[in-house]
Amino acid sequence: MPIMMDADALAVFMKDVFKQVADDFAIDHVSETDLTTRLLVGERHLRPGGTISGPSIFALADVSAYLMTLARIGPKALAVTTNCSIDFMRKPAAGVDLIARTRLLKLGKLLSVCDVLVFSDGMDTPVARASLTYAIPPK
Amino acid sequence: MPIMMDADALAVFMKDVFKQVADDFAIDHVSETDLTTRLLVGERHLRPGGTISGPSIFALADVSAYLMTLARIGPKALAVTTNCSIDFMRKPAAGVDLIARTRLLKLGKLLSVCDVLVFSDGMDTPVARASLTYAIPPK
Amino acid sequence: MPIMMDADALAVFMKDVFKQVADDFAIDHVSETDLTTRLLVGERHLRPGGTISGPSIFALADVSAYLMTLARIGPKALAVTTNCSIDFMRKPAAGVDLIARTRLLKLGKLLSVCDVLVFSDGMDTPVARASLTYAIPPK
Amino acid sequence: MPIMMDADALAVFMKDVFKQVADDFAIDHVSETDLTTRLLVGERHLRPGGTISGPSIFALADVSAYLMTLARIGPKALAVTTNCSIDFMRKPAAGVDLIARTRLLKLGKLLSVCDVLVFSDGMDTPVARASLTYAIPPK
Repeated sequence: MPIMMDADALAVFMKDVFKQVADDFAIDHVSETDLTTRLLVGERHLRPGGTISGPSIFALADVSAYLMTLARIGPKALAVTTNCSIDFMRKPAAGVDLIARTRLLKLGKLLSVCDVLVFSDGMDTPVARASLTYAIPPK
Repeated sequence: MPIMMDADALAVFMKDVFKQVADDFAIDHVSETDLTTRLLVGERHLRPGGTISGPSIFALADVSAYLMTLARIGPKALAVTTNCSIDFMRKPAAGVDLIARTRLLKLGKLLSVCDVLVFSDGMDTPVARASLTYAIPPK
Repeated sequence: MPIMMDADALAVFMKDVFKQVADDFAIDHVSETDLTTRLLVGERHLRPGGTISGPSIFALADVSAYLMTLARIGPKALAVTTNCSIDFMRKPAAGVDLIARTRLLKLGKLLSVCDVLVFSDGMDTPVARASLTYAIPPK
Repeated sequence: MPIMMDADALAVFMKDVFKQVADDFAIDHVSETDLTTRLLVGERHLRPGGTISGPSIFALADVSAYLMTLARIGPKALAVTTNCSIDFMRKPAAGVDLIARTRLLKLGKLLSVCDVLVFSDGMDTPVARASLTYAIPPK
């Protein structure tokens, strides 16, 4: 079960389809079951005090599960999130990117399920965990 | 158990503490157990095709549960989301605000739990539902 | 959109298909969008100290969302839970049944979404809340 | 940060405190951050057709996160689940035990967070995933 899109193809697709936010994210690595992405933290992701906002962490988890799914099914912009459960566990470190490590747990005909651990770059205790379900558009 | 902050007090507090995003949201109504809020939808919340982004819907649910909690415990900026589960159920209508109806299900010493239904303004079938837990800072 | 199974039809179906657990549950009321069910609390649902076990509360929420879905789509034993998020908020009262109030939030071709509030009989603050997604078998 | 209870101590504690269900579960392995447990599948866990019931899988995830937490904080029967999100992804294999692999993602003063992957014994694709939060009783 090879990947249908590599990191470069995913980045090009993201720029085409989500140009408003594509510059927020980088794709470090992708395989059949794993994806590593990065939130390039900027002023717009911060809350007073310098912490990264919850919606920014959610957005990283959401785009990561989307890209992991597309890596396997190819460029289908219409895959949509149906469910996300997210636990915020620690305050992110200031001044560093967030790294998301995504695993593809299921790829069915109709649904994909991923889980994601989010870390401050250079730390080994997670800031957040999330699990997401995507509905895959019929062929 | 009266409220400690009314809609005006919540709006002032939000402008003080989250000035980056305070203009995105309006507070329509608050009582001891219920809050109605609104995402003032703008270009920055949209995805290509005109649909509202998942992170924007998450942000509305998150700020709503936060404000519902603060309405009861007073202005404690440090309340933090510990968990959110969200189901995206329908595509939002184009060109209208999102309305969030929040219920406070539990207000404990350490945790509050809310659920939120999100509607496109004027519709009566929900776009999304979410449940959120906030950790309340100790006195 | 009328219901395809009323409370009696649901009870008969449950006895046929889940005979191991059908005696644990009663169906008080069903409409197009709402269902009220009851866990008939017995020794096997209890933990030491007399509290009702988490898996018993989960089971009540799960069967309730299943029956709510079947009330609308008819007797399809193969509908399966794909996701559940549950918050345990208060200790159930001792010696009384649990009541589950279920709302159907979405009934699509492939997925149904319900939320459930669980109460100790006679109380008006919820013991638990849950949201569940069921995958509906294709015709 | 050593463990405060090893697999034998956890098994003895479970038999003391949850004697109704202790025989359903075995503890294969425990370390500071990981726990492997097993649902000893019997007739009472099955649905017609031989599949394992959702509440039985939930119970395995729930007891696993509880035991992982106790392994680190010691025998505190009063730790309670506050939240669980669970995805059911595949039908379990018939006639084999379920294995749960639990990771401790956070151990705070008030809350612990674990995630759990559940497998049919001998398979390497997961049947279910769950994440759970436990409230830790104050000292």
